[in-house]
This record gives sequence, structure tokens and C-alpha cells, in this order.
Amino acid sequence: MKKRTVAVVGYGKVGQFAVEAVQASPDLELVGVVRRSGSREHSPELASIPVVTGIRELAGVEAALLTVPTRMVPEYAKECLSLGINTVDSYDIHGELVNLRRELDGVAKENGSVAIISAGWDPGTDSLLRCMMEMMAPQGITYTNFGPGMSMGHTVAVRAIPGVKDALSMTIPLGVGLHRRMVYVELEEGADFKAVENAVLQDSYFVNDETHVRQVPDVNQLIDWGHGVLMERKGVSGKTHNQLFKYEMRINNPALTSQVMVSALRATFRQQPGAYTMVEVPVIDCLPGDREELLRRLV
Amino acid sequence: MKKRTVAVVGYGKVGQFAVEAVQASPDLELVGVVRRSGSREHSPELASIPVVTGIRELAGVEAALLTVPTRMVPEYAKECLSLGINTVDSYDIHGELVNLRRELDGVAKENGSVAIISAGWDPGTDSLLRCMMEMMAPQGITYTNFGPGMSMGHTVAVRAIPGVKDALSMTIPLGVGLHRRMVYVELEEGADFKAVENAVLQDSYFVNDETHVRQVPDVNQLIDWGHGVLMERKGVSGKTHNQLFKYEMRINNPALTSQVMVSALRATFRQQPGAYTMVEVPVIDCLPGDREELLRRLV
Repeated sequence: MKKRTVAVVGYGKVGQFAVEAVQASPDLELVGVVRRSGSREHSPELASIPVVTGIRELAGVEAALLTVPTRMVPEYAKECLSLGINTVDSYDIHGELVNLRRELDGVAKENGSVAIISAGWDPGTDSLLRCMMEMMAPQGITYTNFGPGMSMGHTVAVRAIPGVKDALSMTIPLGVGLHRRMVYVELEEGADFKAVENAVLQDSYFVNDETHVRQVPDVNQLIDWGHGVLMERKGVSGKTHNQLFKYEMRINNPALTSQVMVSALRATFRQQPGAYTMVEVPVIDCLPGDREELLRRLV
Repeated sequence: MKKRTVAVVGYGKVGQFAVEAVQASPDLELVGVVRRSGSREHSPELASIPVVTGIRELAGVEAALLTVPTRMVPEYAKECLSLGINTVDSYDIHGELVNLRRELDGVAKENGSVAIISAGWDPGTDSLLRCMMEMMAPQGITYTNFGPGMSMGHTVAVRAIPGVKDALSMTIPLGVGLHRRMVYVELEEGADFKAVENAVLQDSYFVNDETHVRQVPDVNQLIDWGHGVLMERKGVSGKTHNQLFKYEMRINNPALTSQVMVSALRATFRQQPGAYTMVEVPVIDCLPGDREELLRRLV
């Protein structure tokens, strides 16, 4: 079997796990890592892997895993797609992903490439579950409950507040899709905790949720990449009420995100040129191996 | 919006719920029921619906829901597909569905029609979950635990035993994919319980599971269409172990089966001619409404 050649673009937490997920895939070959610094410093695990500063420096890349910050996804995706390189990202701004899909769809079709966007766990596999639950019981309510786990978006928002040296925002599920935010801050010398607390409580990320701010001496001691979801739906199949569905996972967040991206990357090779979300792609396309053998084992 | 025209073929329990599920769908129109008897006897709910003995007697059918017994699916599917009518079935013989898919694929492609096979909950939506869990954690074990609920296949097997007037076989989950069979039998006058019990215990349907047989005066008093599934996977994403996934549902069995069939039927209109299992079809194709609006709401 000829392996597909893959580059990892971006080398934050998800990028590091993405390298492992590619290495663990029987049908994929890692041909390089694209990293702003272009350096292997502090990354002994990259010793035998080409590290470059731009995707054009790597030859023969068929697909790229874009593990850059969400706001940089459109730019990097367009660059790759216009070079004929398939892309997968985990773009996580729910309200804007339809626009990203449109934008990339044009570039992909022009260049004969494929993009699968928002391929993490939410959006991503959770989106698949929400669609499935609605297909099984079209009338009803679905609740997606997150956590307990670290919210990257909320944490970054707190870190940007003056006087904050480091921060951690935990998402605590309260049920029926409501969440509590537990914010842990490590302050800079002389910073005023009350001022920081007020800034957090008035931030648009926190203003709609019950939020508690705690001062701690060392945020790093609290960090754990575990996260979770509990999704529930009670609905109606046909005219029959009280159909009950529940999906729960407890996972290492960057490990799952990168694995879903790698699985989606495999599916890019099986779609017509264009941009897709995961719910628009057959699930089986994400798995390696012979199609009929998979159907025998999993259907 | 022009509604798609649908016939329900077969009018057992799933067929009855399928009629309701079509009626509850905003984009589908029920044009008739195909029933061996061709009669509305004992079915006042069919008063305003054409009832015929063969699919050819109905004009303008675009798709058929095949709610006939599994063994009759191939014959009925081939008839419909060769008439250019899309089909959905809930064919449930896991070991043979790949052969059915091949057989129908040829007929469908010759006639420009689409078949989605094995579109119930197992095989069907459970298959989607098994694929998803494997995509999220490629290494590990998935356990599918069924019940408590009535097993149609096992019940039919017991009913065929001489001396049995009526029977019910309940599937009880013991965890890690193991099941206990609780068999309730109502005997014919003069039948010997011990002989029936031995026949059950030696039947190939029961020989591999812990099985208990009980004599009851009236099986009908025990019947409840509720069923359930608990699917669990503990596995590895990339190189990260202990990723935990769990899916659970508690549902009315024929109501869910027929709703999944109706949702899959919608997807037949969005595939190229051929035969597919549910895992080969984008999940979003099963939902009615504007594509981008669905993506905004569910992804």
C-alpha cells in the first residue's frame, strides 16, 4: 500500500499530538512539520523529521493538518489548497464555519483539492452525534454539556487581562447545556486581584455564565488536558415520544482533536474537490483498510 | 417545496410506525401501502391511504420503505430498484449485508436508482457509532450491549418449536458484549414444558448464551416494544491511551427503526445510483431543510 504523505502545520499542543497520530496511522507518512521558528529546539521528538517555516519548502505533500490557531486557519488553508494540497483543520468558531466552508470551497474546486473543516470533537464528532440524534428523533431537544475540562478560548481571554501572568478557565457542566466557569489566575507582582476578577466577570466570554475567579500561586500545577462531553436528547421518532439518547466521552483533548483530524484527512482523498464539514462526509471514509472488510466488521 | 413520494412495503409493526414517520416528515408524502392482503381490515389508520398488493399498482412512487421480513428484502428491493424506485431496508443479517449491497448495487446502477440497506439501529445508527468510535480511537475494543428488550429473531425461533403457542425472548445485557436470554413460552394444550425447554436450549440461536426458559399463561401480557443499547469503547487516540466513549439509548424499537429508515430514505435522493450502507452516506443527507441552515445549527 502506498502511504499518503502528510505535513503538520503548526506545532502547538494539537500539532504535537498530530505528529503522534500520523505516526500511528498505517496508511500515512509524515513528511515534515511547518513551524514558525523552523527549529527543533525543545522538541527532541522531531529529531528525524524535516522542520521548515513554510509548506512550499516540503516536496510531495498530499495533505496538511492545520493545527494553527483558529483565526489563522483561512490563510493557511487557502495557501495549501491553491497548491493542490488537501487540508484538514479544527476551526472552532461555530457561527462562522459556514462562511469558511464557502470560501475554501471555491479555492479547492479551482485547484482540484479537498478541505475538511472544523474536524475536531466540537465542532466535529459532536456535530455528527447531534445530526444522528436529530435523524433518530427529529422532534425534541439536544443538550451538549461540556467538561469538566480546560477551555482554550476562555483561558486565552483571561490571559489577555492586564496583571494576569497565567490563567486557566475550567468549564464545569451544570446540565441542560448550562455551564459554570471556574477561573484560576496567577497574578503579576503588584497586580490587584479584585481588578482582575472584575475584568474577568465583565468579559464577553464570561458575562453569560456563572463565573468564579480564584487566585492561585502556580497555574501550571492545575493543568490537565482531560476533557469531556455529555450529550443528551429526548425526542420523538415518527409519532412516538420519550426516545432517549445519551453520548458521553472522557478524553485527552488535544489527543482526540488531532486523531479526528488525522481520520478526516484520510477522508479528503475520497471526496470530490471542494470544502466539507465532517457531517457531509461518509464516516467510513475516515477509516483505513478494505471497504468491504470494514463493513463486515463494523456495520 | 415539492414533497417526495413514498410507499411503505409491508405492514407489520415496523410498517405501521413507518406510516407515522412518513406522515410526520415535512418533505415526504405517503402515496400508498403495499400489503399482501391488499386490505385495510383491522387497520382503521389506513382509511385514507391507498392499500395495494404490489408496488406496480401505485403510480409515481419515488422511494419505497421495505418493512418486509429480512429474508424477503432482496426480492422486493430488486423489484423496486429495477422500476427506478429508490429503496431503504433494515436488512439485519450482519454477515450477509455486504453480499446484499453488491447484489443491489448492480441493479441500482443499471436502473439509475439508489438503495440504502441495513438502515435501522443495529445495523444502522449503531454502525455509525462503531465507525465513529474507531475513528476517534483506532486502537481498542468496542462493546455493544443490547437490551433489555425483545429480540425478534430469537422470539421467532422459539415460536417455531412444536408445542409453543406463543413466545417472547428478551435480551438482557451482562456487559462487555455478553447477553443473557430470558425466554417466556405459552404452551399449546398438552405440550411438555421440559421438551420445549430442551429444544430452546439446543437451538443455534441460544446455544452460545446463558438462557433461561419460563412458562407463562399469557405471553402477550409481557410484550413491551422498548429496547436499548449501551455501546462502550476504551481506546487509543494517536499514542494516548484511556480515551473513554459511551453511547446509550432507551427507545421504542419499531418507532426508532422506522424513523431511521425514513431519514435514510431522504438520503437516497442525494446519492449517485448504487447501493450503500448508512456509514457510506453523509449523515447530513438524512436531515430535511436547507444545508447551510443545518450546518449553522448542528455543526
